[in-house]
Amino acid sequence: MKEKATSFDIAHIAGVSQSTVSRALNNSPLVNLETRQRIQQIARDLNYKVDKNASNLRKQKSNTIALLLFEDPTSDDSMINPFFLSMLGSITRACATAGYDLLVSFQNLDDDWHAEFEDSNKADGIILLGYGDYTAYRTKLAQLEEQGTHFVRWGAHDENHPGVSIGCDNYQGGRDVTEHLIGLGHKTFAFIGDAQSHAPEFQARFMGYQDALKKHGLLCANHRQFNAISTEDAGYEASQLLLNEDNLPDVIVCASDLIALGVLKALRQTSFRVPEDVAVVGYDNIPVSAFATPALTTVRQNTKRAGELLVTTLIKAINKEPVEDYLMPAELIVRQSCGSK
Amino acid sequence: MKEKATSFDIAHIAGVSQSTVSRALNNSPLVNLETRQRIQQIARDLNYKVDKNASNLRKQKSNTIALLLFEDPTSDDSMINPFFLSMLGSITRACATAGYDLLVSFQNLDDDWHAEFEDSNKADGIILLGYGDYTAYRTKLAQLEEQGTHFVRWGAHDENHPGVSIGCDNYQGGRDVTEHLIGLGHKTFAFIGDAQSHAPEFQARFMGYQDALKKHGLLCANHRQFNAISTEDAGYEASQLLLNEDNLPDVIVCASDLIALGVLKALRQTSFRVPEDVAVVGYDNIPVSAFATPALTTVRQNTKRAGELLVTTLIKAINKEPVEDYLMPAELIVRQSCGSK
Repeated sequence: MKEKATSFDIAHIAGVSQSTVSRALNNSPLVNLETRQRIQQIARDLNYKVDKNASNLRKQKSNTIALLLFEDPTSDDSMINPFFLSMLGSITRACATAGYDLLVSFQNLDDDWHAEFEDSNKADGIILLGYGDYTAYRTKLAQLEEQGTHFVRWGAHDENHPGVSIGCDNYQGGRDVTEHLIGLGHKTFAFIGDAQSHAPEFQARFMGYQDALKKHGLLCANHRQFNAISTEDAGYEASQLLLNEDNLPDVIVCASDLIALGVLKALRQTSFRVPEDVAVVGYDNIPVSAFATPALTTVRQNTKRAGELLVTTLIKAINKEPVEDYLMPAELIVRQSCGSK
Repeated sequence: MKEKATSFDIAHIAGVSQSTVSRALNNSPLVNLETRQRIQQIARDLNYKVDKNASNLRKQKSNTIALLLFEDPTSDDSMINPFFLSMLGSITRACATAGYDLLVSFQNLDDDWHAEFEDSNKADGIILLGYGDYTAYRTKLAQLEEQGTHFVRWGAHDENHPGVSIGCDNYQGGRDVTEHLIGLGHKTFAFIGDAQSHAPEFQARFMGYQDALKKHGLLCANHRQFNAISTEDAGYEASQLLLNEDNLPDVIVCASDLIALGVLKALRQTSFRVPEDVAVVGYDNIPVSAFATPALTTVRQNTKRAGELLVTTLIKAINKEPVEDYLMPAELIVRQSCGSK
């Protein structure tokens, strides 16, 4: 009986590595189309059949990355917030480019998601993407690490956290947008957004904002803060509190674009004009921010780059290559809403 | 030796069905929190351990739904178009609600995706979501059906296609928006968008548009059509051709919002005002359409409902319950850009 053809045979005939053969047979875009087609032709000629299950068991790889989405407590029960959705899109795309499937699973922070991947061979590694209080799941991350599960976390570096993190510099983003506003001559400020430890992203943005004000001696009498979770409604409601007070600040700094959209909505119902009477800035650069009236000045977290970094870093970890934390710079996007008072 | 506890024991003690036990242990939101916690407590008391792999093999279920995304030929290589992204979000959310994980996989129409799920136990069923020429993969759908794979297709019912389809009525959407425009007194029309069989959604919208014009005797001399794929750039370019011709129509009907955004951009660079000099309408109701200047009149495909229908229909099919095609009605959204000439 003739021996069954192996991927080694194909690699030999094609003059490429076995991993290139594997990628080509998985139709990975990492192999250029011509080479892919040539390898696929050789495989057909040899009557080669991939035994997917066996091959996955052998290499203990599922060619799948799991994305655990932790419930965004700020979203309503039916929609994903635009920043999350954008990340979901870019991670999906980055996985496709790398030849991986993506297993998306919503989780509650309290659940036993850290045990879920212990015995199963569902995914080669995990991306953790979530809002909220990261400290609540520190012990679970430690368990993941102990059991040798590869994972990458979306968020800022935190020395109390095991594992690798990819994040965007929320402190710098908050500081830069505030410095820009101060440079435009604005003197009095309000900040809308939860600025507490249970919302670490917002808190970092707020600290950057606060430090910029401090540096220019503008903090003491000239600043107010209103709580709001990241929704248009919460921004709208916080604006009502602000509008009920005696004096309008020169500028309202919002912890997210969704909050800023709610603020713009509230201001449209008054005689105050944006940015002439009051400037407004957001954070996230969600797609609609460019189309708001006036167009929102905001801070961009590059979700496309973030998705690519999360996926490529995780794949490196899966392949036992060295990986490290990375904090992407935040990018100020100046549009019309910040004015030039 | 004491027998290991089974889900039957837990069901008996808790006074619920075995499937409720299974759902509760999978943390499905279909079981209310109190019951879930009570069942989980009983499981802990009995020292019950779910053997995930064994249990999946036994019931041949992975509690996972696969979403095959067919490359949108109209998108650039790094971004998912906003309609697709919105569907991805709603399908992800609908899976979470039903207690399923979602396995997302980009595919090329030409690939052997129909064979991928034949032997593997990666998913209990498949959602097919894609643009383009469905006729190209009819035989693959037939193969899926033969091998007993459960699948649901996004798109209009087509008697030549095996399997169940959930779609939105593109013909009716195209007709309704055109009827509305005619009712506003518009007399001359241009349509921007590929209106050929390789783009069946656009073609159906175009046919609805055309039939409305015919009905009112407006088709013959008063209508022009320009090809464009679904991008802002393509809309912008098609507008240049239109603007180079002698007379501007009363209204430009676009096959998608992205095209319409390109048209609005091109018109901003002229002295023509929207909607005073020329009305513009889009299709899809992508998030930015409400924020365009002027706000776009468009046709909504309810992506939230679509995601829910795709997921619940597929789960019914997996559970061997009867399922049937469903065509959601399209919904006209009137904003400022259609004018009232």
